[in-house]
Amino acid sequence: MTDANTYAVLFEPVRIGPVTARNRFYQVPHCNGMGHVRPRAEAANRGMKAEGGWAVVSTQETEIHPTSDLSPFAENRLWDERDIPALRLMTEAVHAHGALAAIELAHNGNHAQNLFSRAPVFAPSDMSLDYAIPKQARAMDKADIRAFRRWHRDAALRARDAGFDVIYVYAGHRMTLAQHFLLPHMNQRGDEYGGSLENRVRLTRELLEDTREAVGDTCAVAFRFAVDEMLGADGMQAAEEGRAVVELLAELPDLWDVNVCDWPNDSVTTRFQPQDGYQNDYIAFVKAVTSKPVVGVGRLTSPDQMVSMIRKGIVDLIGAARPSIADPFLPRKIEEGRIDEIRECIGCNICVSADTQGVPIRCTQNPTMGEEWRRGWHPEKIAPKGREEAALVIGAGPAGLECAMQLARRGYEVTLAEARAEAGGRVLRESALPGLAAWKRVADYRLNDLAQRANVRLFTESRLDADAVLELGIPNVFVATGATWRRDGIGRTGQRRPPVIDPAARVLTPDDIMDGRTPPDGPVAIYDDDQAYLAGVLAERLAEAGHHVAFVTPASVVSPWTDLTLEQARVQARLIKLGVEIRCTRQMLALGPDRMRTACIYSGREEDIPCASAVLVTERHRDTALYDALRDRGGFRTLELIGDAASPGLIADAVYSGHLAARNFERDPGEIDRDWFRREMVALEP
Amino acid sequence: MTDANTYAVLFEPVRIGPVTARNRFYQVPHCNGMGHVRPRAEAANRGMKAEGGWAVVSTQETEIHPTSDLSPFAENRLWDERDIPALRLMTEAVHAHGALAAIELAHNGNHAQNLFSRAPVFAPSDMSLDYAIPKQARAMDKADIRAFRRWHRDAALRARDAGFDVIYVYAGHRMTLAQHFLLPHMNQRGDEYGGSLENRVRLTRELLEDTREAVGDTCAVAFRFAVDEMLGADGMQAAEEGRAVVELLAELPDLWDVNVCDWPNDSVTTRFQPQDGYQNDYIAFVKAVTSKPVVGVGRLTSPDQMVSMIRKGIVDLIGAARPSIADPFLPRKIEEGRIDEIRECIGCNICVSADTQGVPIRCTQNPTMGEEWRRGWHPEKIAPKGREEAALVIGAGPAGLECAMQLARRGYEVTLAEARAEAGGRVLRESALPGLAAWKRVADYRLNDLAQRANVRLFTESRLDADAVLELGIPNVFVATGATWRRDGIGRTGQRRPPVIDPAARVLTPDDIMDGRTPPDGPVAIYDDDQAYLAGVLAERLAEAGHHVAFVTPASVVSPWTDLTLEQARVQARLIKLGVEIRCTRQMLALGPDRMRTACIYSGREEDIPCASAVLVTERHRDTALYDALRDRGGFRTLELIGDAASPGLIADAVYSGHLAARNFERDPGEIDRDWFRREMVALEP
Repeated sequence: MTDANTYAVLFEPVRIGPVTARNRFYQVPHCNGMGHVRPRAEAANRGMKAEGGWAVVSTQETEIHPTSDLSPFAENRLWDERDIPALRLMTEAVHAHGALAAIELAHNGNHAQNLFSRAPVFAPSDMSLDYAIPKQARAMDKADIRAFRRWHRDAALRARDAGFDVIYVYAGHRMTLAQHFLLPHMNQRGDEYGGSLENRVRLTRELLEDTREAVGDTCAVAFRFAVDEMLGADGMQAAEEGRAVVELLAELPDLWDVNVCDWPNDSVTTRFQPQDGYQNDYIAFVKAVTSKPVVGVGRLTSPDQMVSMIRKGIVDLIGAARPSIADPFLPRKIEEGRIDEIRECIGCNICVSADTQGVPIRCTQNPTMGEEWRRGWHPEKIAPKGREEAALVIGAGPAGLECAMQLARRGYEVTLAEARAEAGGRVLRESALPGLAAWKRVADYRLNDLAQRANVRLFTESRLDADAVLELGIPNVFVATGATWRRDGIGRTGQRRPPVIDPAARVLTPDDIMDGRTPPDGPVAIYDDDQAYLAGVLAERLAEAGHHVAFVTPASVVSPWTDLTLEQARVQARLIKLGVEIRCTRQMLALGPDRMRTACIYSGREEDIPCASAVLVTERHRDTALYDALRDRGGFRTLELIGDAASPGLIADAVYSGHLAARNFERDPGEIDRDWFRREMVALEP
Repeated sequence: MTDANTYAVLFEPVRIGPVTARNRFYQVPHCNGMGHVRPRAEAANRGMKAEGGWAVVSTQETEIHPTSDLSPFAENRLWDERDIPALRLMTEAVHAHGALAAIELAHNGNHAQNLFSRAPVFAPSDMSLDYAIPKQARAMDKADIRAFRRWHRDAALRARDAGFDVIYVYAGHRMTLAQHFLLPHMNQRGDEYGGSLENRVRLTRELLEDTREAVGDTCAVAFRFAVDEMLGADGMQAAEEGRAVVELLAELPDLWDVNVCDWPNDSVTTRFQPQDGYQNDYIAFVKAVTSKPVVGVGRLTSPDQMVSMIRKGIVDLIGAARPSIADPFLPRKIEEGRIDEIRECIGCNICVSADTQGVPIRCTQNPTMGEEWRRGWHPEKIAPKGREEAALVIGAGPAGLECAMQLARRGYEVTLAEARAEAGGRVLRESALPGLAAWKRVADYRLNDLAQRANVRLFTESRLDADAVLELGIPNVFVATGATWRRDGIGRTGQRRPPVIDPAARVLTPDDIMDGRTPPDGPVAIYDDDQAYLAGVLAERLAEAGHHVAFVTPASVVSPWTDLTLEQARVQARLIKLGVEIRCTRQMLALGPDRMRTACIYSGREEDIPCASAVLVTERHRDTALYDALRDRGGFRTLELIGDAASPGLIADAVYSGHLAARNFERDPGEIDRDWFRREMVALEP
């Protein structure tokens, strides 16, 4: 327990134009894969943030017109009056907990594909779409600009009618027309909307004035603005035009929401930016230029840092997207001095991946994220136990830790047995790899929680066999024994023609590397048929250790899945910089003592890649031996496989699996199968 | 007019188990980007096929359980009773026109990602997902198999309750569990479901029996089966196990729906398979093995070929997906002898791209496709004209041709002026490139239609200037002057730092090549920042003409967009085979007389690519000079820019643009902006 007064400054109210935030915690707009596609889920998700103490809770970006159609992504939509009722659910959920509801109106210009609406795409000047599809945006003429301003104004009025307290003009993430007009490389206009900065700012100024005129009497007008493109002299910089924009518009909005762009910079992962508060140097100037309140972000989870940012005059409001996802109750925990109960964001961007995949948001740290409405899950509450008294969880990796913690919260006597010397499982092991240190928070948070509880016994160095389990006499057993990387090179691409591995070849698996084994002298070939993040991380580790590394993969880029976490370009750039030789679109056919035989996935042309050893990152074997033995022995009331042992996946999947098992414990299996979750259905009445 | 009796055999009824198809036209299951996400659109889309004369109309694949969750793709869903009302809309729309409604029940095994449901993924054996995400499928145990059979049976009962007449078991496209169990490389089980073919067929047999037992008294049980994987000895072949499967199950289903897999083979484009009926050699054996009716596909649009296939005993029913998209009224047109009115599929797979992008289906040939419900568009009907009498369309490319044709159908006096010697615009020009010959059908169909109409005047070699337009005295003008490829190398990647083009560099554009210009001797570098199909086609043309071609692109593969049309792997393989040197992930910095300077998009590392000339495929300039001049002169009641001149895009976009302009002509602009289209909204009641 910390003295709550330490953080009292964070709980001062802040006036934002005509409305007042009850404290300084501000959930900035972020996508959650719900939006107009899942409005009841959206409302419950945002309502949970309000319940957790955020004074302002924003929706995600909201399309204002069919010419800004972000389908198939599940953003918000306010094309016309038909969209108001869905958004009203959100504002009501937020207001129910005393928070302000904010909406980020967006016209996405050439960042919209208009695939659903089939509308023309707009930009300041003729240009390609931001997406690599064969469709171009057309330069807006004056009539287009007038129409756009009318649409924006109409959307602001509809937003007010839906109950929003804060209404955004949005010029950020290089994703919106307002920003596109600001950027010289996108705006080559010869009229009063192009050329000088004053001209390029004109559209934004008009939008701010239009919005104030329309709704400013009752709603605050916020302006989200990316002050720096993080491209040095190739882009807008905070020290130059970024600052000049703030100077030109200083007192026009009621609130400045400032950040850096593009999205991979604003929401950088811990792998590439371990420091929280990483935007401070860029945004610090803003408060000196405007008298209006300023909100900023930077993966802020430390209350001490928050206080320091307020005291130093960097921001007035503590902005957060990811920290509010990992812990919707972050403000309340600080207010109540429960600092060590904060579930800190690990900066893995699994949240981002879900939105990009068009499904509800997920979080590695917070398995209830996205499940608020459809499953009724609350991040801080869980049903008390039923008739059963005790449970055994075998394996203290992410699934086992989460399962044990939730079972303990439900009130069971929980025994958690871990074979290794230290709890944490793959989280512990992977967090020792380059860039992944913050992932250890997944274990730390849970171990800290478990350590507080009298009804938990954690045993390390306790590898149990079936006899030992039976001896314990606990009738309910959850088996979280994980998975190990295959050594045979079989994976996604190698199913049909398994690679031939010479017995003399020196093969390492990711587990070997994490166990501390090092490759022999000579070049190492990493074969990545997993195509996610791990092979790239291992390549970094080995190259940094001085090995010559060849990175061989059937994929067309290094670690393609990391595109979903906004990391792919950085991963590939880093490997190139480290001297890693990259050989894409190649399947491994055979591995010998001094070479890997590969074939082009398109042409079949073969090529040998010299290597003294190989690290094979292909697929995992589930470790089910103990589970199988226990099942054969029988006699348990509950015997359930969870986590990677049930289905190898992400750490987020393992945590979720452990959580689900704990929630479902003592529920009727038939009921579970009949009632997966509530669903949002399309209305069928004419 | 053809003698309808020629085709009488196509209109014989066919008995399928307990139901009867009124003729031999069978719309096999195909995706349309609607499904459970857009149920009213789905119903209207399928209903239109029934109205057009198809005797059987199928939905798309239908998820039977949360463990087969295809989100974010908009397929159909029948997880439980809540899904029945949406599907009933579809069966009612189909029954209203006297057709049978069919449903393809699907469990997609490791082809499902379960991103929305977060359910475990199933497969015959432990293996990676079919998608490159870090999640593995688990081998189904016996309890899983029993559960799966129960889910399938329950789904069949719900399908019957929703009004379906034909219910599928689906083992095709390498996308479903039933097929995964059949394939030895995916099924390494040691129990009675693995090993021998009899064992691998067991699950399918059980599903067929279960379905018959559940609903076989009133519904036909169809079996969709891919007889050949098109991998030679590496996969299942029609001549071997494919045939053996049919022999083992011959009389079990009421209908055999047979094809080849995977999807890029079943729905191959004309670019890679110009021949219609291309599956006949693979499926012809089936009728010899079973007494049950057989349906097959192969982009069938020629009634003569259809008759021949029936007469030869290859199939009993003419299956179609794409031909029914290009022309929902194909059966009725044949029945009524209106053969030359058939809008033939061009085999471009734009239909496929829409589904993959999660939006409603589109079609290059049929701009009303996907617009049946939301806009009330009918492929064969359009509102008659209002008060205006005459219209001028300038430019006879895809937009101008479609606009002129629809205006003529509405009853206006239409003047269509084309600058070149032959009408067709980019369709004509692109169809002369390798593999694209069938695309000419876009122009042929419209020119044939226009030629029949007394109210149309088409002038070729008529390049109009503003004076000439004013002289014509037509108050309504549609300008479809198209776009030309840029010569300056600016495009998607080159906005911020435009490439430096040396005046001595020999630059060609795609327009130059289509105009018949040839590069000088020496190597040619093609720079593709369009990243769609055209640069790959041009590389093929130049390599075939004997040039040494380097293909340079910022993309990580050749023609990445063609992944959406199921062509990418074929495009890249073909270029490799032709000796094209492929240089991916490189941006052009500068072009000189003998080299192209490029930089790695990740690292910035520079590399010179020797070339005597370069073809720059980056972006297009809209040709708006005439439109701008006319707008300045003023005095028109209607002056509208359409097609590529308004917004460069796909041929499908241009056709749609011309169609939309013709539909909207004489509508109130305010009404058009207020009323884009009907929308499917999520139900909000608790």
